[in-house]
Amino acid sequence: MKEFDEYLAMVNQAIANLRLPERPAGLYDPIRYTLDCGGKRLRPVLALAACHAMGKEPMTAVHQAIAIEMFHNFTLLHDDVMDNADVRRGRPTVHKRWNMETAILSGDAMLTTSTMLLAIKAGEHLASALDLFNGTAMNVYEGQQYDMDFENRLDVTVEEYMEMIRLKTSVLLGCACGMGALMADADFDSQLQFFNYGVNLGLAFQLQDDYLDTYGNPETFGKAIGGDILNDKKTWLLIMALKEDEKGIVKSLIGKNDNPEEKIEKIRGVYDSLGLPDRIHELIRAYIDSAIACLDQINMQPEARSFFIDLALKSATRNK
Amino acid sequence: MKEFDEYLAMVNQAIANLRLPERPAGLYDPIRYTLDCGGKRLRPVLALAACHAMGKEPMTAVHQAIAIEMFHNFTLLHDDVMDNADVRRGRPTVHKRWNMETAILSGDAMLTTSTMLLAIKAGEHLASALDLFNGTAMNVYEGQQYDMDFENRLDVTVEEYMEMIRLKTSVLLGCACGMGALMADADFDSQLQFFNYGVNLGLAFQLQDDYLDTYGNPETFGKAIGGDILNDKKTWLLIMALKEDEKGIVKSLIGKNDNPEEKIEKIRGVYDSLGLPDRIHELIRAYIDSAIACLDQINMQPEARSFFIDLALKSATRNK
Repeated sequence: MKEFDEYLAMVNQAIANLRLPERPAGLYDPIRYTLDCGGKRLRPVLALAACHAMGKEPMTAVHQAIAIEMFHNFTLLHDDVMDNADVRRGRPTVHKRWNMETAILSGDAMLTTSTMLLAIKAGEHLASALDLFNGTAMNVYEGQQYDMDFENRLDVTVEEYMEMIRLKTSVLLGCACGMGALMADADFDSQLQFFNYGVNLGLAFQLQDDYLDTYGNPETFGKAIGGDILNDKKTWLLIMALKEDEKGIVKSLIGKNDNPEEKIEKIRGVYDSLGLPDRIHELIRAYIDSAIACLDQINMQPEARSFFIDLALKSATRNK
Repeated sequence: MKEFDEYLAMVNQAIANLRLPERPAGLYDPIRYTLDCGGKRLRPVLALAACHAMGKEPMTAVHQAIAIEMFHNFTLLHDDVMDNADVRRGRPTVHKRWNMETAILSGDAMLTTSTMLLAIKAGEHLASALDLFNGTAMNVYEGQQYDMDFENRLDVTVEEYMEMIRLKTSVLLGCACGMGALMADADFDSQLQFFNYGVNLGLAFQLQDDYLDTYGNPETFGKAIGGDILNDKKTWLLIMALKEDEKGIVKSLIGKNDNPEEKIEKIRGVYDSLGLPDRIHELIRAYIDSAIACLDQINMQPEARSFFIDLALKSATRNK
């Protein structure tokens, strides 16, 4: 196995080597801009590492890895239009920098391009890779739809929330891991365990995201703290508080943004009084444990297993 | 060979048999609504007929045929958002009936679903079918981008316009014909000639669309006449008039909509004085002849050839 940053370098090189057409510039420039955004590149790294762990050169899965990264960036682009978000990773979003039409059309082109990348050197795995990729994509759209549906509801259950984040964010990490194993000719059970590892990792990752949005250090987190609270976003924290806060403080503050700082402070106070910071970390730890348990079902070298265990443990304790 | 309406019945049955998930309704209801729109179903019929003409049962290509129809409807859905169109085939567009977010997300799901359909029973042709389909999709996006770029230009040339409509609308008809031939195990040259037949048919079809928008009978055409003129749309007619109208009447009317009826009448007067109605029909006839010439390069039964010749001749003389 290699270090995370070595797989990352392979991914970044492959993205830099992509030769998109120059014209029409209005279609392809926004795609270059979006891919050039930085980002953790967690998904393609997982794909290369899973492929390597299953005994093949990591670059065997490189086209499928960047197909998944392209897909991920496409979803961010279209999500930003739907959320009317102004900024993504410190830069104007595509629909702000260009316009809404450009953002929709360039996103469509990214989705088709991701399928084209997926097919490159897929060989005998093409049909399976497409099934995994397309099925995952449909899950992501379903998750996004549930997320939008939840905006108008106060009765979202924890089970509904966990299913939404499983669909919207976790299955794509599962897909990345499973895709790497598939491209390494791994048996179906190993692909499935890698998929499940990724899903559990994704759930832990999203819950940590929810935690950091309210409790993170603004300097390391990279964006303002409390955004989810001000947007009344139905996160695990808010859903638990709506359910358990007997005084109805949280419910009374939903939809009220005349005093943002006070709202954040009051709602965080409820979270604290219910012990939610500790309880979300117990839950995160449970998903990390489940992720690691999946690894035990896969026949691989100890150093490969360590790579994925370390990654899981780090994602549970990350501060950005 | 069968009649057009018999292939159409197969297509409509296959679309009716599609089993999309029920939930989340916000994602899947707009897809059902869009597919239920009617429409000519020209592309999937071409795919089944080309497959049949090449000696296989038409239903051999049915999944690929409805994949292309699904893709076509996806492009209409997203185009309507980009154009902020209120009505499509006599019904509210998805973003009017629901909202912009729903229209974007449901469209994305239709694009992924079209790729899933394409893969069903594609067998050994999967890689080729995907190449043809994805390459065509990229062309369609490029054409849409050029079309949007042209809105801000008065110096669009006829060559640029023909390339734009080739990309935006014609290659998808070529793709449908080529896909049918591919699924029938036809040799590559026959696939290519079928593709070229479809492209030429598509160019004739679009030019006839341009003609009908200005010169059609409102009762048979199904929408108000003169919409392209009022939108200053860079059609073949407008581009030719901008180039040849020495008095500058057309140019002086661009962007002015205070008297719509007079604008339509004046610009149509210029078209008439330049003989454009006759000249566009000469051009349409030339593309139809090119389409028919492609058929001569394909080894098929006379009744199969007649089917495609009739279709081409009808599309050049259609009034709706």
